[in-house]
Amino acid sequence: MKFSQTFIPTLREVPGDAVIASHRLMFRAGMIRKLSNGLFAYLPLGLRCFRKVETIIREEMNAIGSLEIKPTVVVPGELWKESGRWDSMGEALLRVKNRLDADFVVSPTAEEAFTKIIRDELSSYRRLPLSLYQINTKYRDEIRPRYGVMRSREFVMKDAYSYHAGEESLDEHYRAQGAAYRKIFKRCGLTVIPVRADSGAMGGSGSEEFMVESEIGDNTLLLCKSCDYAANVEKAECKPDYGRFNAEPAAAANVPPVEKIDTPEVKIIEELCAFLKTEAAGFIKTLIYRAVNVELDLSAAPGCGSLVKRRAAPGAPETYDEAFFAVAIRGDLDVNEVKLAAALQASEAGLAADADVVRITGAPVGFAGPVGLAAVPVIADQTVTGMTDAVTGALEKDKHYRHAACGRDFAPWLTADVRTVKAGDRCPLCGGELYEKKGNELGHIFKLGSKYTASMGVSYLDENGKSHIPVMGCYGIGLDRTLASIIEEHHDDQGIVWPVSVAPYHVIIIPIKYSGAVKDACDALAKELEAAGLEVLLDDRDERAGVKFNDADLVGIPWRIVAGDKNLAGGIPRVEVKRRSEKEARLVPLCETTAEIAAAVKAELTALNGTR
Amino acid sequence: MKFSQTFIPTLREVPGDAVIASHRLMFRAGMIRKLSNGLFAYLPLGLRCFRKVETIIREEMNAIGSLEIKPTVVVPGELWKESGRWDSMGEALLRVKNRLDADFVVSPTAEEAFTKIIRDELSSYRRLPLSLYQINTKYRDEIRPRYGVMRSREFVMKDAYSYHAGEESLDEHYRAQGAAYRKIFKRCGLTVIPVRADSGAMGGSGSEEFMVESEIGDNTLLLCKSCDYAANVEKAECKPDYGRFNAEPAAAANVPPVEKIDTPEVKIIEELCAFLKTEAAGFIKTLIYRAVNVELDLSAAPGCGSLVKRRAAPGAPETYDEAFFAVAIRGDLDVNEVKLAAALQASEAGLAADADVVRITGAPVGFAGPVGLAAVPVIADQTVTGMTDAVTGALEKDKHYRHAACGRDFAPWLTADVRTVKAGDRCPLCGGELYEKKGNELGHIFKLGSKYTASMGVSYLDENGKSHIPVMGCYGIGLDRTLASIIEEHHDDQGIVWPVSVAPYHVIIIPIKYSGAVKDACDALAKELEAAGLEVLLDDRDERAGVKFNDADLVGIPWRIVAGDKNLAGGIPRVEVKRRSEKEARLVPLCETTAEIAAAVKAELTALNGTR
Repeated sequence: MKFSQTFIPTLREVPGDAVIASHRLMFRAGMIRKLSNGLFAYLPLGLRCFRKVETIIREEMNAIGSLEIKPTVVVPGELWKESGRWDSMGEALLRVKNRLDADFVVSPTAEEAFTKIIRDELSSYRRLPLSLYQINTKYRDEIRPRYGVMRSREFVMKDAYSYHAGEESLDEHYRAQGAAYRKIFKRCGLTVIPVRADSGAMGGSGSEEFMVESEIGDNTLLLCKSCDYAANVEKAECKPDYGRFNAEPAAAANVPPVEKIDTPEVKIIEELCAFLKTEAAGFIKTLIYRAVNVELDLSAAPGCGSLVKRRAAPGAPETYDEAFFAVAIRGDLDVNEVKLAAALQASEAGLAADADVVRITGAPVGFAGPVGLAAVPVIADQTVTGMTDAVTGALEKDKHYRHAACGRDFAPWLTADVRTVKAGDRCPLCGGELYEKKGNELGHIFKLGSKYTASMGVSYLDENGKSHIPVMGCYGIGLDRTLASIIEEHHDDQGIVWPVSVAPYHVIIIPIKYSGAVKDACDALAKELEAAGLEVLLDDRDERAGVKFNDADLVGIPWRIVAGDKNLAGGIPRVEVKRRSEKEARLVPLCETTAEIAAAVKAELTALNGTR
Repeated sequence: MKFSQTFIPTLREVPGDAVIASHRLMFRAGMIRKLSNGLFAYLPLGLRCFRKVETIIREEMNAIGSLEIKPTVVVPGELWKESGRWDSMGEALLRVKNRLDADFVVSPTAEEAFTKIIRDELSSYRRLPLSLYQINTKYRDEIRPRYGVMRSREFVMKDAYSYHAGEESLDEHYRAQGAAYRKIFKRCGLTVIPVRADSGAMGGSGSEEFMVESEIGDNTLLLCKSCDYAANVEKAECKPDYGRFNAEPAAAANVPPVEKIDTPEVKIIEELCAFLKTEAAGFIKTLIYRAVNVELDLSAAPGCGSLVKRRAAPGAPETYDEAFFAVAIRGDLDVNEVKLAAALQASEAGLAADADVVRITGAPVGFAGPVGLAAVPVIADQTVTGMTDAVTGALEKDKHYRHAACGRDFAPWLTADVRTVKAGDRCPLCGGELYEKKGNELGHIFKLGSKYTASMGVSYLDENGKSHIPVMGCYGIGLDRTLASIIEEHHDDQGIVWPVSVAPYHVIIIPIKYSGAVKDACDALAKELEAAGLEVLLDDRDERAGVKFNDADLVGIPWRIVAGDKNLAGGIPRVEVKRRSEKEARLVPLCETTAEIAAAVKAELTALNGTR
C-alpha cells in the first residue's frame, strides 16, 4: 500500500483530553478520530490493527470449538425483563423506545439474546455442550467516558456463552476459555495478570479476570510478593491475623467480665480511641447492613422469623427480597460489601439507612454492638472470632462495653471472611506480603450457573427423557481496550512500537526521494516483500525524509527500510534496515533484505503465537 | 468441519410468517433465528454465507481505492441536526436519549458521521479525492418489518462516501463504484437490473439503483421490451403520446372557443366522463400541490410575489419554505410526485390540503382548472401541451369548460414531464413497449453534490489557497438483502442451491454410516479436499442417510459426496458425486475425487469472479 493512497492523518499536537499514551498515540498516528464524547471512529490504520486483534481472538475461539454467530445489536427490552436485568442494570443500559413505543436495549452484553436464540434449540442433551460467540458492537452509557477507546461508550466485545448439561462440562469449557484467553493475550504481546474476581452483578460463581497493570485502572488488585497469588480487591482474601488486643484466643479465660462504660459524645472509632487511649484494633466495629435477594436460608436466624422466600421468576431460585444483618469486624478493618453479599448469597449488600439502624439497635447510630443484639443475625468477620477483650457498642446512647469476648458475651450467627484486604496484609496461599496495583480489565470469564437458563426457561431432556435446566458460562474480551493496552505496553517517546502480530504493516519502505532509480528499487522491493507474505507500507509522499522518519516511528511499524541514491549506487546496492525497537540502522544488501526481514517476522510471529 | 461440531439446527416446518422462499429457507436451513419482529440472529451457517458476501464487497471496494473505516453505530443527534436530517428523516430514524439527556441516533446511514470525521482533515486539495467506506450495523425503525432479513429493522450495510474537488473527479469515482457494484453482484451470482432512480430524500442529483426482480419488491420498475431501458417508476419517462381528443396540436385553429358548461353534482373525472359521454383522455385534470424547500426561482411566477428564499443552514442553498402550484395533466394520467418535486427542485411535493385548494381556486374541491387561474403558477405536464379541445374545471362550483386549448386559453408557467409512466407506455429511448416489474433495491449509488459538505461546513484550500466546498457521493449495499436475494434466485423445492462463491461450504461428505472403513475414507477425503483449498462439511451424525441427504439439499452445498461400504469396497474404491443443481449422481474413483471437484470449484469461481 502506498502512503498517498491510504489515509493516515498523523498529527504533531495532542488533543487536550488525551491523558494516557494510547489515547494520545492513537490520535496522533491517525488511527482514530473522535465523533463525540466516548464515541470514536477507527480510520484505516487503526482498523487494520483492530482487525488483527479480532482475527487472533476469532482463531482462538474457533480452536476451542466455540461457534461464531451474529445476533443484533439492538435487542428487545422484553428479554431483559425476563432475566430481571432490565431493573438491575441501572443507568449504564442504553434504553430505546421505538416508534411503536416498544422497549429496546442497545446491547452492553448478550446473555439474554444468546439464551433466547438457543432456548428452542436445546430440546435434547445431544445438543449439549454448545458454545457460541459473537464479535460485535456493544454500548454502555458511561456517565464519564475517558481515556479514548480505553473507556468509551461504544466498543466491540467478543462475548461467548456456553451451555452445558452439568458442572463438569462447564468446568471443562471454562478451563478451555481460560487457556484461550492466555494465548490471545500472549499473541497480542500483552502481559496480563489473571486474577480471581468476584462475579458481581453477573451472578453465579467462579470467575477469572484478565487484567493489565495501568495507573488509570479502575480495579485494585492485591498481589503477593512471594507467590503468584493475584486477586481483585472485591474478592481478595488474606491469612488470618491477630491484633495487639487479641493475641491469643486461649487468653479469654483471664479476661474480666464484660462491663458497660460511659462514652459521652463519642461515636466514631477514632473518637473512642482517643477517649479510651487505645487502638482501633481493640474494637469490634458493628455495622448494620441491608441485603437484597438473599438466597441463604434464614429460617432459623434471629429476627428473621417473619421473612418469606419467593421466586422472582419461574425457574429462578427462591430468595428473600430483603434482610438486615449486623456485621461485626475488627475496628481497624473495613467490610468488603462484595464479599459480604457473596457470604449472604445476596445480589447486593449495602449499609442500612439510619432509620433502620435505630430500629434494629434501639440506639442512635454509632452504638451498635453484637452483645445482646437480637433483632438481626450477627455476621462476624473471621477476625472477630479471636477477640476476647474488645470494646464495642452497647446498643445504648453514649455507652460502650469493654472486656467483650466473642463466644462468651455473644455468639455470631455466621462467621465469614468479609474484610477488605489491603497492601501489607498476608497472602492467603504463602503468607507473603501483599501489595496493590491498579489494573484494567481486558477479559473476564464467568461460571453463571443456571441464573439465566432458569429465569428464561431453558430446559433439555436427558437420555431418560427427564427435563433439566442447563448451566451456563460467559466469556468476554473488550477489543478496543485490548488494542489500547497493547499500545500502553509497547510505546516509547517517539510513538508506538507494535508487536508484529498486531502491527498495521510489517514493513515501511522510505525512499529518501521517490523518483528515478530509488523509486524503481522501492517499487520492486515492495513487490518482493509482499510476495514473501509481508504487509508493506511504501511512503511515496513528497515530504522531507525527517517527516517520513517521524511518522514511521509514530505509527510504529516494526521494520523500517530506508532507500537512497547513495547506498543503492554502490557495487552492491544496499538499503538501511532498522527495527522500530532498536536505535541503530544497519546496511543490508538489497538482494538479501526480503529474506532477512521475512525470516525475522516469521520468527517473531512464531514466538508470539506459540506452536499454532 | 464436522456436522456434529457446528450448530445447524435444520427444521422441517416453516414459520407461519415466512412467505418468501429466502425467509423460509434461511430459517429451515438453520441460517437465522428470530430475536424479535424484524430482528434476526445469524447462526454459524448463515454467518459463513454472510461473511462471503461481505468479503466480496470488501475486495471490490478496496480494488477501487475506497478505504475501510469503522465509525460508531450510535452517533450524536447533533450531527443530524447539523445536516437537517434530524427533522427530515421522520420516524424511521431510531432516536435515543442517553442518561445525560443528550440525543443520539442508531445510524440508518452515515453521511453525517463520515463528513464529521473528515471535516477537519481536508485542509488541502492534496487530500482529495478521498473515498471511505464501512461495513457496519444499521437500523431503520420499520413500522412493518417483513420477509425475514429482506426487510428487517437491523441490518448490515456497506456504505461508502467520497469527497472530491470537483464534479469530474466525482463522476470518475461514481463510475468506478457503479462498475464495482456490477462485479459484486456478478460474483454473488445475482442478476441485477441497474435502473435510473430518483435520489429522493438523499438530496443531490445523479443516481443509479441496483434492483433484483421480486414479487414482494417495494419498487415498481419500467422496462423496455425492445431495448435495455430500465427505470424506477419514481423517475421513469416515456415517449410523448397523444390521446384521441388531441390527436394533433395543429388542429387547434379549428376548435370552437372555450365554453363554460353546467356540470351539476359532478366532481370526479369518472362522473364527468359519464355526464359528457366522453373519455378521461379528453380532460385536463388540474391538481393543487404544496411543495417544500423549493429551490426553483419563483420571483416572476404568478402569485409568488410575497415568497422569500432563505438559507436553512450555512452553506445550504437558498429555498422557499413552501409554495403552491396547480399541476395540469391529461385526465387519464397520474401525477408522479417525485418527478414533480424534481421539476420544482423541491425536497417534497404533495397534494395541498382542501382548505388551500378552496383558497387558491376560489371554488370547492373538484373544479380546479388552468383557465383563468392566477393565484399560483400552472405547471403543465408535457401531455397537456398538445391538448386543444379539452374539458377542464372552471374554478366555480358545478361548472366546467369545454373546448379549452393549451396556449390559447391558458399559458402554463412551466411545462415538465411529471406523469407516472405505466406498462404499455412507450420507451423514451426506442419507442418500444414498456412493461412493469416489482423490484427490490440491493444497492444504490448517488451523487450528493455539496448538500452535506455545505451544511456541515467542510472546505478545502486549492493550489492558490482559495477555499472551496468539496462535492460528495454515497454508495450503499445492503448485505442481508443481497444474501436473501441470492437465495431467492438460487433455490428449488428441496432447498437452497448456492453459487460456489457464497456457499457456506463447497463440499459436503455424507458417509452412509460414519464408522469403520467408511469413516476412515471420509476423514482422509475431507483432509485431502481441505488441503486443496476447499471448505468441507462432513456429516458425521448418527442419522439415517435420507435425513442427511435432505439436509444437504436444504442447506444447498454445491457438491455432495456420498461414501458407502459397497462402492468403497470394489477393486477401485469409488464415491458418489453429485452437484446440488443436478439430478443424477456419478460414481467417481476416490483417488480422483479431490482433483475433479477442486477443478470444478475453481472454474466456477473464476467464471463468477471474472479476471480477478
